Amino acid sequence: MANNLLKGKKGIVFGALNDMSIAWKVAQRAHEEGAEFVLTNAPIAMRMGEINKLAEACGNVPVIPADATSMEDIENLFDKTMEHFGGKIDFILHSIGMSPNVRKGKHYTETNYDFYHKTMDISAMSLHRVLKVAYEKDAINDWGSVIALTYIAAQRVFPDYNDMADAKALLESISRSFGYHYGVKKKVRINTISQSPVMTTAGSGVKGFDEFLAYANDMSPLGNADADACANYVLSMFSDYTRYVTMQNLFHDGGFSNVGVSEGVIDKFKQ
Amino acid sequence: MANNLLKGKKGIVFGALNDMSIAWKVAQRAHEEGAEFVLTNAPIAMRMGEINKLAEACGNVPVIPADATSMEDIENLFDKTMEHFGGKIDFILHSIGMSPNVRKGKHYTETNYDFYHKTMDISAMSLHRVLKVAYEKDAINDWGSVIALTYIAAQRVFPDYNDMADAKALLESISRSFGYHYGVKKKVRINTISQSPVMTTAGSGVKGFDEFLAYANDMSPLGNADADACANYVLSMFSDYTRYVTMQNLFHDGGFSNVGVSEGVIDKFKQ
Amino acid sequence: MANNLLKGKKGIVFGALNDMSIAWKVAQRAHEEGAEFVLTNAPIAMRMGEINKLAEACGNVPVIPADATSMEDIENLFDKTMEHFGGKIDFILHSIGMSPNVRKGKHYTETNYDFYHKTMDISAMSLHRVLKVAYEKDAINDWGSVIALTYIAAQRVFPDYNDMADAKALLESISRSFGYHYGVKKKVRINTISQSPVMTTAGSGVKGFDEFLAYANDMSPLGNADADACANYVLSMFSDYTRYVTMQNLFHDGGFSNVGVSEGVIDKFKQ
Amino acid sequence: MANNLLKGKKGIVFGALNDMSIAWKVAQRAHEEGAEFVLTNAPIAMRMGEINKLAEACGNVPVIPADATSMEDIENLFDKTMEHFGGKIDFILHSIGMSPNVRKGKHYTETNYDFYHKTMDISAMSLHRVLKVAYEKDAINDWGSVIALTYIAAQRVFPDYNDMADAKALLESISRSFGYHYGVKKKVRINTISQSPVMTTAGSGVKGFDEFLAYANDMSPLGNADADACANYVLSMFSDYTRYVTMQNLFHDGGFSNVGVSEGVIDKFKQ
Repeated sequence: MANNLLKGKKGIVFGALNDMSIAWKVAQRAHEEGAEFVLTNAPIAMRMGEINKLAEACGNVPVIPADATSMEDIENLFDKTMEHFGGKIDFILHSIGMSPNVRKGKHYTETNYDFYHKTMDISAMSLHRVLKVAYEKDAINDWGSVIALTYIAAQRVFPDYNDMADAKALLESISRSFGYHYGVKKKVRINTISQSPVMTTAGSGVKGFDEFLAYANDMSPLGNADADACANYVLSMFSDYTRYVTMQNLFHDGGFSNVGVSEGVIDKFKQ
Repeated sequence: MANNLLKGKKGIVFGALNDMSIAWKVAQRAHEEGAEFVLTNAPIAMRMGEINKLAEACGNVPVIPADATSMEDIENLFDKTMEHFGGKIDFILHSIGMSPNVRKGKHYTETNYDFYHKTMDISAMSLHRVLKVAYEKDAINDWGSVIALTYIAAQRVFPDYNDMADAKALLESISRSFGYHYGVKKKVRINTISQSPVMTTAGSGVKGFDEFLAYANDMSPLGNADADACANYVLSMFSDYTRYVTMQNLFHDGGFSNVGVSEGVIDKFKQ
Repeated sequence: MANNLLKGKKGIVFGALNDMSIAWKVAQRAHEEGAEFVLTNAPIAMRMGEINKLAEACGNVPVIPADATSMEDIENLFDKTMEHFGGKIDFILHSIGMSPNVRKGKHYTETNYDFYHKTMDISAMSLHRVLKVAYEKDAINDWGSVIALTYIAAQRVFPDYNDMADAKALLESISRSFGYHYGVKKKVRINTISQSPVMTTAGSGVKGFDEFLAYANDMSPLGNADADACANYVLSMFSDYTRYVTMQNLFHDGGFSNVGVSEGVIDKFKQ
Repeated sequence: MANNLLKGKKGIVFGALNDMSIAWKVAQRAHEEGAEFVLTNAPIAMRMGEINKLAEACGNVPVIPADATSMEDIENLFDKTMEHFGGKIDFILHSIGMSPNVRKGKHYTETNYDFYHKTMDISAMSLHRVLKVAYEKDAINDWGSVIALTYIAAQRVFPDYNDMADAKALLESISRSFGYHYGVKKKVRINTISQSPVMTTAGSGVKGFDEFLAYANDMSPLGNADADACANYVLSMFSDYTRYVTMQNLFHDGGFSNVGVSEGVIDKFKQ
């Protein structure tokens, strides 16, 4: 599928670690649909990842490291990006999340509060920082579109999701709050996409993640949405077909969010 | 527990069929808390039920049959009730629901539309009829409270709940819509309580209902709320402690509505 | 804008009355994006409207009258459509709504229940009928997409919207309920789009509608979404970019739904 | 009104500054309803406030200062409280919120991130700290009830509410997340009450707050809920009448949350 959906559009893609990342797929598909963009990730993530391969595959696009908790880095990112394009951009993908509490195996009821602050800083406030810098530098064209990836744990409890649930709730609130102000001032729209769980590098080591994927798949009439499908949906939200959608949390989950129980799950309770 | 919570309050309780009914428990508990009320149910339901025993146990309260789809019956009910009390009432419990499609085993995708209209008429529009008659007769005191029982199938799909899901969505909308007008005019508040599944006469014959109860119980941190607990919650909503709550759908479900998955459910997906 | 977004896709568009209709715009834009479709409307609406002009402008597409409350008409519509295309379709737009209570000026608290049943029948159950017929005839390709237009009155009270609010709540519930079953069986996805108010033939005669449009516009950071923008959004939902979105109610409203108050509205309360 | 609703119940009330505070009213009313409790507030707030008067009026209850961002203080508070009562408690009111960004007049788009972290720490994470300490010390009886006060800005944008909106979204998420774990382990239930705006010391200096109160009042069919009514509602949630309500956000707002527009607001758009 390639329809020049994003022809002439310019943007920044945060968070492409490797080819399991949704951001990676978004970059690939955005390239196929005619967009130009800059890739960025945290310096440490870039060392682990293979972002340069992606940059090549997308036509040698610039890769600009930026720690999303550093104002200096984000300012540098926007300056370099606007210099590269000779002007403003049209879209941003925010796909950033990390919880030291999860990494260190701290149960939600035993949170370390320094870690908790870091989870919020990296996973939620980073969106505010990006938007604040963009707003100050007037870096986004009218009707530009910002998407942040989120998860339904912001609404309902998934016990193992830990403080990332709170971070996603905060992220979605920031998206609404900033969406109001940026919408009023510059018609920039800001939305979150609440995606099915996908097996990424982050998920692959988590105990019980396979069972969880199976459950989510069973509860979703269309099955779990995968990263490729998510990328397509992100593109539709970057395109001009969706101009008046803003401040929304959009479920891309095969129907999961509106299913109370599936026949398959009930079957598990038989015997 | 008895605190005279409803001392001096008068009301109408719809839908007490037998001692498994939530409405039955509400009547019992309202009596214990000092309320006076009239009992009513459909003529046909009264023949099957044991409502007269309940009436005796509550101090020989009047039992007035009324088909909730008949304006004539509802008008008669309100006339007799106001005559009995020599004035207005303070609370109404609407616990009415029936789907001919469910009874006849018609799958949701094979709905009979005459049945569907009846499901809406009995299970949802009946609330509108009751409120319309009350409104016209000015039968409810200022700050009076109306509660209709509903289920989370109004928000999320439970495949076997069939067209009752649509009826509950309609019921909740009527509660909001009429709640606005009745609130503005007379400070009457109207809410729905979205209750855990309970084993009632209606549920006891349904295939797979035991498994479903087990699932809901497992997903609810406090377990399924039972009919006794529901009655207490209804009383709190009839009382003066909750005067400014209106047009809301209130989940009384042990937390079910905000749980994405429980550890117990995930365990079922292991192996 | 034209990207062959719907190239090769076939569908049915309900509800194009005249060039103020959203359905009219959807048809025009779907044609530009490479779709083929059949137009339909109620026989009586077709007499008032100018649907044949639209059919011509879209490449002489068939116009097949159908009363959306008649199973016979809907069956005929699907038979003729599948005959015309020599096979299945990919998308359906449901843009149907009418309230005799609104037309006759009956206040919500004074509803005529025969009218109320008709409002539900025409505005909500019609979606169920269309889906039931499609399901029985296996008329929709895997991953096909059905969109019904709705309004936020399904969630919050807009006093003049009357029983159409209840109809929209019912419509959205039907969309979820059928969305589950059709998703499980055939990967067909069903969503509602909750659109900003627009001045259509239906709205143009309503007292206070101009003020209401001004209020909604003021509350929406991007302003009210117009019919052209809505058409584009519908197309994105028909396209393959949004395959895993189902059972959702999608706000296309310039942000209105997530604004509690705007600065403009507060200004009106000064002095 | 006094029904011994909380007879025999013990608790902690956070946040009573002066007689305009909701927490102050909750303490007064809890005392009237037979509860015993400890009062607490931040040391700095206690210097400004008149909490000792309240302590006297409630039967000389202990006043224990605690900075809600200090684990040490919270641990001390729980130790002293359990010592005072010779055992566990039954309820906690969390009424804590402060934003340095609001105080310093920083617009949402110009947030100072150190301030932002403080807003989250004081207004949201404080609930987590309180619950973590209670959980570790097993300080709450089975079926105990925790209420945190919140505002609808967590769901919809009120431009002047600034980063407190994000803090309330985070607070509500913490309430759900911890509500799951505490419910599973000890049947403790945790809810937030989303209250109408009230003129408190915090609100009285805010530019445009009077207009905002007038708007909210006009949009609410029952008018704005005041602090006294809120106190009653809190008591009902502490009582045994509401045992199976957990992880919910409960609107106590005269209907505001489910009104799309009122006739009064539309009138402002006339001429």
